[in-house]
Amino acid sequence: MIKVAVVGASGYTGVELLRLLVGHPEVEISCVTSRQHEGLPISQVFPSLAGFCELVCSPLDVPAISAQADLIFTALPHKSAMAVVPDFLAAGCKVVDLSADYRLKDKDVYEQWYQEHTSPELLSEAVYGLPELFREQIAAARLVANPGCYPTSVALGLAPLLSKGLIDPASLVIDSKSGATGAGRGAKQGSLYCEVNEGFKAYGIASHRHTPEIEQSLSALSGAPVKVTFTPHLLPINRGILSTIYATLLKKKSSIELIDLYREYYAKEPFVRVMPGNELPNVAYVKGTNFCDLGLVSDQRTGRVILVSAIDNLVKGAAGQAVQNMNLLYGFAESLGLGIVPLFP
Amino acid sequence: MIKVAVVGASGYTGVELLRLLVGHPEVEISCVTSRQHEGLPISQVFPSLAGFCELVCSPLDVPAISAQADLIFTALPHKSAMAVVPDFLAAGCKVVDLSADYRLKDKDVYEQWYQEHTSPELLSEAVYGLPELFREQIAAARLVANPGCYPTSVALGLAPLLSKGLIDPASLVIDSKSGATGAGRGAKQGSLYCEVNEGFKAYGIASHRHTPEIEQSLSALSGAPVKVTFTPHLLPINRGILSTIYATLLKKKSSIELIDLYREYYAKEPFVRVMPGNELPNVAYVKGTNFCDLGLVSDQRTGRVILVSAIDNLVKGAAGQAVQNMNLLYGFAESLGLGIVPLFP
Amino acid sequence: MIKVAVVGASGYTGVELLRLLVGHPEVEISCVTSRQHEGLPISQVFPSLAGFCELVCSPLDVPAISAQADLIFTALPHKSAMAVVPDFLAAGCKVVDLSADYRLKDKDVYEQWYQEHTSPELLSEAVYGLPELFREQIAAARLVANPGCYPTSVALGLAPLLSKGLIDPASLVIDSKSGATGAGRGAKQGSLYCEVNEGFKAYGIASHRHTPEIEQSLSALSGAPVKVTFTPHLLPINRGILSTIYATLLKKKSSIELIDLYREYYAKEPFVRVMPGNELPNVAYVKGTNFCDLGLVSDQRTGRVILVSAIDNLVKGAAGQAVQNMNLLYGFAESLGLGIVPLFP
Amino acid sequence: MIKVAVVGASGYTGVELLRLLVGHPEVEISCVTSRQHEGLPISQVFPSLAGFCELVCSPLDVPAISAQADLIFTALPHKSAMAVVPDFLAAGCKVVDLSADYRLKDKDVYEQWYQEHTSPELLSEAVYGLPELFREQIAAARLVANPGCYPTSVALGLAPLLSKGLIDPASLVIDSKSGATGAGRGAKQGSLYCEVNEGFKAYGIASHRHTPEIEQSLSALSGAPVKVTFTPHLLPINRGILSTIYATLLKKKSSIELIDLYREYYAKEPFVRVMPGNELPNVAYVKGTNFCDLGLVSDQRTGRVILVSAIDNLVKGAAGQAVQNMNLLYGFAESLGLGIVPLFP
Repeated sequence: MIKVAVVGASGYTGVELLRLLVGHPEVEISCVTSRQHEGLPISQVFPSLAGFCELVCSPLDVPAISAQADLIFTALPHKSAMAVVPDFLAAGCKVVDLSADYRLKDKDVYEQWYQEHTSPELLSEAVYGLPELFREQIAAARLVANPGCYPTSVALGLAPLLSKGLIDPASLVIDSKSGATGAGRGAKQGSLYCEVNEGFKAYGIASHRHTPEIEQSLSALSGAPVKVTFTPHLLPINRGILSTIYATLLKKKSSIELIDLYREYYAKEPFVRVMPGNELPNVAYVKGTNFCDLGLVSDQRTGRVILVSAIDNLVKGAAGQAVQNMNLLYGFAESLGLGIVPLFP
Repeated sequence: MIKVAVVGASGYTGVELLRLLVGHPEVEISCVTSRQHEGLPISQVFPSLAGFCELVCSPLDVPAISAQADLIFTALPHKSAMAVVPDFLAAGCKVVDLSADYRLKDKDVYEQWYQEHTSPELLSEAVYGLPELFREQIAAARLVANPGCYPTSVALGLAPLLSKGLIDPASLVIDSKSGATGAGRGAKQGSLYCEVNEGFKAYGIASHRHTPEIEQSLSALSGAPVKVTFTPHLLPINRGILSTIYATLLKKKSSIELIDLYREYYAKEPFVRVMPGNELPNVAYVKGTNFCDLGLVSDQRTGRVILVSAIDNLVKGAAGQAVQNMNLLYGFAESLGLGIVPLFP
Repeated sequence: MIKVAVVGASGYTGVELLRLLVGHPEVEISCVTSRQHEGLPISQVFPSLAGFCELVCSPLDVPAISAQADLIFTALPHKSAMAVVPDFLAAGCKVVDLSADYRLKDKDVYEQWYQEHTSPELLSEAVYGLPELFREQIAAARLVANPGCYPTSVALGLAPLLSKGLIDPASLVIDSKSGATGAGRGAKQGSLYCEVNEGFKAYGIASHRHTPEIEQSLSALSGAPVKVTFTPHLLPINRGILSTIYATLLKKKSSIELIDLYREYYAKEPFVRVMPGNELPNVAYVKGTNFCDLGLVSDQRTGRVILVSAIDNLVKGAAGQAVQNMNLLYGFAESLGLGIVPLFP
Repeated sequence: MIKVAVVGASGYTGVELLRLLVGHPEVEISCVTSRQHEGLPISQVFPSLAGFCELVCSPLDVPAISAQADLIFTALPHKSAMAVVPDFLAAGCKVVDLSADYRLKDKDVYEQWYQEHTSPELLSEAVYGLPELFREQIAAARLVANPGCYPTSVALGLAPLLSKGLIDPASLVIDSKSGATGAGRGAKQGSLYCEVNEGFKAYGIASHRHTPEIEQSLSALSGAPVKVTFTPHLLPINRGILSTIYATLLKKKSSIELIDLYREYYAKEPFVRVMPGNELPNVAYVKGTNFCDLGLVSDQRTGRVILVSAIDNLVKGAAGQAVQNMNLLYGFAESLGLGIVPLFP
């Protein structure tokens, strides 16, 4: 039994962490923080939690929180996270940071896409929290940088192809679509119901901050620097990311051969499901769960493979992966508290 | 550990039963049937279930199923249910029937709203499966008639007021709104995405078949025959029923007094949550769970109480309540397998 | 050809006014104002308008605007409207005010539900802009108080029954559901996509500010003071209000008799459509148009009539009715610029 | 004034044709057909049309229809269309065919992707009805093959780049997303509200029948055979297609240079809007209209151009383009009856 704190509990990632943690048999939630709702029971911020969590939102007081918790989940925006993570570590806590602040290994790349980094000395220590690729390093870490939602869908999708050298990395085109929780719970006009509903658009073309994170993962997988074209879109749904990924095959492979290769690659993974050849992923099939569903087609006409990767952006793309990382950090069974059956429809 | 069969597994109620049952620690699912998908793995009918249930859809063969199961969930349309329920009982199985066939005590009322009843002799034996009202009878039953979704939301909403004699039953107006899973998974033009999305309508005004079921429950609660005006509407959401119920108070009571009364009435119920005075239910807060959330306002200007009741129509309105009834039938803890935290958003 | 200004053009009512006015053959839009977007082309605020309106958002400068316009549409929040309407009138303009500030005839009632009224002397002059009831007064007005969205749906729905004395006004229960544009374009957390989507709730029970406006209209129709129970709900759709209205019939009347009465009552109205007896309104059938669709059922079991009224809250509930009022003010054909066919689906 | 018939009026393309035609000043609709609803007023099939069209659905009787109409819109599925189009032509009518049957010039390609062609002799005569590319040929045609929805969005998006030789055609990747009206009004399980809502998926990867149509248009534009990777997806919205198109630039060009080129190329087109450099298309901005909105970004990092094209699949992707073609066929102003302002939101 460990004690955990959720720092920044009033966003969508925060409530999702609480949803998963209140049912985790090895976890006691000792503290939730929210600047906006300080003093309010979290079950009034999120009435869905009534009966499950009776904590009151605290201010972000690092010493007070550290004294009550073994592990801190920081669910803060980038920049706000690195303002407190070093202090939590110094106080002896472990940290799973859900922001972007410790994901990029290269300080210069971080500073080019975000802003000045105030604790660059932690970048080499931080472990990128994608268990399917870095399981052992995570288990031994003090600071886990929980991956971004888009990068998770892409890295899991491409790992088999890239690590086996089957595609030309220069040909990679990644067309991703995310549900609206990805935009956060802040009150912005662009996130209003009537602006999103019955609409669909691309955004951040050639400039989205997840691009360098995607490239870092794919470069690691392919063993050489990879540059990608990455285009995110906003879907009128609450949850889910579907990434459609295009690459030129270096050797002719049929759909069946590639699916077999994927099944083998992910045979022991509890959270990756490779779809049969006649099926394709749908974000509806992973709703509320930590699964990444993968499907693909090899197009003989054009020599390209078209790969589809679906996750719930709040679970495998954020809170669920964070809990999976916590399980690794503390030696719990990796799926503990994550055995949720998808809610369909 | 008991063995259960889900008869009629390929509808929305079927997949919801499977979602709940695959995680139930005292249940083994021994059989699923589907005429439409006979021979197909249920995880291909519902890819959300991949990794959780590898059964293949069987035909509806009563002897074969009875031989493998202690308890049968019949998730069939009315009329189809009564064609097999007596045989399952005769074969020694217990049955939780999710159709309307055994809900009404009065054969004539059934035949007036539905069609001829082919096993009226079972009507007196069948127990109406609303645990909050009939817990003890359910525990001793052989055949449980699982309540309808609208009637569940209404009976739980009105039980305190009616049983205490606080409202005039003749004044009752029930305005209910249901998500589209309520219309089933059959391919009908009126259920198409583009017919439901961005639309909203009433249907079945003064003629919906849940009317006599509602009246039966409310009559039992008030101790005298009750006639209601009941209007269902189709909401462009997947899951959820919200019933807004209007009644004239016989004595002046403030909102706070009534909320206190509700909190006391439902103090020991694991699945009824009474909202604080400044909050109102939202179907989003109960998504995927067996909760019924209740809120109310006493309107001093008009002397009416306005009561709001929210459930997930597939859970407390169908599959979840069926599992709750199963728990009662077999002496399991009543919430076993139902401790799901709502998925918000 | 008249010159009009739209004051407060950057909300949903503003863009809807512009949608209707750019195609109106007797109107030139001379000015649009927006504090938030001052200096920005309105076609960048609303890219949907690209190619239709190249005006730049002005500040709210009454003398400058008055000099360029015959008629002012004030699409401002209540309180902000009454801060400028008297000045526009003094400058010789006519005004169609879309706020609540001049709808209530009784200053005390206004101040009880809103706040202090700063130009109560205009309340008796202002004409309530519901053309189906007050066509002649509107034609002669200087200041038209454009009705609220909910009150429009209710008054048109009940006019035949109340004016003929067929129902008991004390029995009236009004259960209304509105699309999310009704909450405006302000950036509020409660209006975010993920808070509204897949949700449904009541709000403002027994306290919504449209209640006195509804009661004022219904009292006028019935010839005696009417008090109603009115409950609004938030629908996860962009546009549309559906009001389901319950009342006890004073004389037994069949559905067919009542529908005939409605058809006769509204025979000459261009914007009221009474549905045949076997059909019910759906907000999807009036999308983008100035129609009010009405349907009803007489419930012989309970002696109540159940009436359903559907409008597009942004058109007949706001901008379309404002244009209809403009047509009356200037002697244009009442449907000029409003002959839009509903967008289905 | 011409007389037109809509053959196959009860689908989504049919009702959209009627929406546009009832308001067209040079058109009288003389006949609507529907096998499914024969004998029923079209305003009962689509209550949105009440008050606009009082025709009763006829059977598909070619001689009877030909005798009443100058122009036939065939809104039938492929194969059904070619069963009647030759007869309408033989009877002296002009035809705008909205099916796929006459779009492909090469009989073998048609037969490879669809089925045997029963009137291949008309393939060379039929004019592909994309006015922006083939305006003059359309004006002189007897049979217009109205383009598919996806191909329209792609051909308009790529015409400037391909005709100027600025991109490598072999690099083309087309990722398209369509609203659910694209799946038609047939009652299929996959089109049910609960199957589409809160979901998102790709379908028909490397095998969608619009692929050869896209390739035919792009080959004509580039002057050499083009093969593309085309992936359609199903969006949970009613209307709209957004195509995100990727290609490698043969010469370095900035976003601004390319946008200027697009503005010049489409300067005289009434229905193509090129967005400013800081904006991107959204299907919400073209809802209900015949516009194609285009936006693009030149990605200096990867040397690719990312182009976004948005249309309403039922208007520019079907019925609106058909009316535009009718206007060309009869010498009416090309935008007559199509000057609709987008419905936002």
